[in-house]
Amino acid sequence: MNSFDKKYRKYRSIIDQRLASSIRKSEPVSLYQPMKYVLSGSGKRIRPLLIILSCEAVGGMMKEAVHAAVAIEVLHNFTLVHDDIMDHAESRRGRATVHVRWDPNVAILVGDELVAMAYRELLKTKSKAIAHVADVFTEGVVEVCEGQAFDKEYEGLHTVSLNDYLLMISKKTGKLFSVSAEIGALIGGGTEREIRALRTYATYIGRAFQIQDDLLDIVADEKEFGKAIGGDIVEGKKTFLLIQAYEHATGNDKRLIKSVIEKKGISKKTIPLVKEIYERCGIIELAKQSIDKDIRQANVQLKKLRDTPAREMLFWFSGMVLHRQF
Amino acid sequence: MNSFDKKYRKYRSIIDQRLASSIRKSEPVSLYQPMKYVLSGSGKRIRPLLIILSCEAVGGMMKEAVHAAVAIEVLHNFTLVHDDIMDHAESRRGRATVHVRWDPNVAILVGDELVAMAYRELLKTKSKAIAHVADVFTEGVVEVCEGQAFDKEYEGLHTVSLNDYLLMISKKTGKLFSVSAEIGALIGGGTEREIRALRTYATYIGRAFQIQDDLLDIVADEKEFGKAIGGDIVEGKKTFLLIQAYEHATGNDKRLIKSVIEKKGISKKTIPLVKEIYERCGIIELAKQSIDKDIRQANVQLKKLRDTPAREMLFWFSGMVLHRQF
Repeated sequence: MNSFDKKYRKYRSIIDQRLASSIRKSEPVSLYQPMKYVLSGSGKRIRPLLIILSCEAVGGMMKEAVHAAVAIEVLHNFTLVHDDIMDHAESRRGRATVHVRWDPNVAILVGDELVAMAYRELLKTKSKAIAHVADVFTEGVVEVCEGQAFDKEYEGLHTVSLNDYLLMISKKTGKLFSVSAEIGALIGGGTEREIRALRTYATYIGRAFQIQDDLLDIVADEKEFGKAIGGDIVEGKKTFLLIQAYEHATGNDKRLIKSVIEKKGISKKTIPLVKEIYERCGIIELAKQSIDKDIRQANVQLKKLRDTPAREMLFWFSGMVLHRQF
Repeated sequence: MNSFDKKYRKYRSIIDQRLASSIRKSEPVSLYQPMKYVLSGSGKRIRPLLIILSCEAVGGMMKEAVHAAVAIEVLHNFTLVHDDIMDHAESRRGRATVHVRWDPNVAILVGDELVAMAYRELLKTKSKAIAHVADVFTEGVVEVCEGQAFDKEYEGLHTVSLNDYLLMISKKTGKLFSVSAEIGALIGGGTEREIRALRTYATYIGRAFQIQDDLLDIVADEKEFGKAIGGDIVEGKKTFLLIQAYEHATGNDKRLIKSVIEKKGISKKTIPLVKEIYERCGIIELAKQSIDKDIRQANVQLKKLRDTPAREMLFWFSGMVLHRQF
């Protein structure tokens, strides 16, 4: 394990501990039991990591950013709990989702209180920039909702352009990445230029992360991935891959892709066929190129920062997003 | 119309206008169309009024508190949209609820974004006390969620004590009242003593308001009330009336009340029978006494404040809660 892995592990464990101990109340049981369940789950904690590293990269200290780091993870968990209701998702990180293990009403309330908890954590931040930080955080919540709304709208459409898709993921996934970097840089007392560089860095990283997510649905190892391969295909989810395949495929391939989009009796048996089309039409390659380009553009931004251990770790972080298998 | 009515009407119209114009975006349509629908609805705007009057009562100005006033109303609307999903409510203030007019997914997202919007409005407040204000607001969100969770838990229980009920409504209804008064007083620069007096005032008012709400379900004029009379009875909702009736009724009366609580085939035809029991056992009277006592205790708190037009209007406000018919 290199020093970056060690540091990541350390930060992740701090976030895990704070999340697990953040709920002291036990009543109403119907609320706090599932909340504890959610916050004791596993997670990559990459948004908190982005906050901490962005803070450090501009000269701030980890402990200044730790409340915001916990807050962004709580907020992220809120989006997961509510999205899982809307998407009828049955499992998340290898465990039953809240609305399945309890019921949708419980999941609605749990999500709602997670938002409040996120603000509570955020507002513990001692920083001259707290008002600005809170504004950025709030815009994050707004755009995440917009992104999810677009995502649900797209489900009912037969054609979604690549631009539509990129707009949607910039809100649904990208925004919390850029918000994390911006908040970290604000708390760390970064200059305008540093804040902009980190925000842009995280925007690229967020896009790469989501396209990687789309890609993993088809190329990942099922066990490591924690969910079934090809799930997006069965659901007809308009991913980078499906949208690009519809654009590039012809003849019978195009007809199959069209039927996936229109969700006409798509079964698990179709997954290998779709994967073949993705490969034949160079869609897997297109996705990899897109991720690669975003990571490179992200790294260009890092060069605008002073040379610090945190900046080095952000380069490492870019690589981690590029190579992640789960 | 007296001067208090005029002022209330003026403040309400300011809040209405700000709510109606608060959304400038139109896409995603699935999000912003229902949000505009929610925020253009009618409402008593009593939480905003409490914020403004509390601010004025400690020497502040209306315009300092107006963002917070809009914020608390947006937050209140969030709770309505999500509660309506959980309660399967079909109409609200004479219009279809969001989850009925659109669908539950839309209603979840609309509620979520309303929380963000509420914070956005709140954070526009220019005040030295803004950090404290944001904390109080956040605790409000937490307790409202707890109150709703208790309310849903009680639905599954056969016995709920009056104390349980009072705890639940202190969170579900009372908290946003006390939060409003506290935020108004903080923004207005009130002393510790003034803040405490106003918070306590609003706590009593909130309780009276909710018990009045329970009472109106059985004694209101259906047209003015905007919803069907006896709805709480049909649903077996554990209101002040039902809980007290279970405590005080005997024999056949008690058996009927028990069957209402256990929701054993209660139809609209049963409503008049239950109402008779409420009257015969003095439950209506008990509710009225409770409201009356709370209002008097609320007014005692106002006497701790300086004699100002805003304090006079708060006395008027107490009376309005006491005498409201809808």
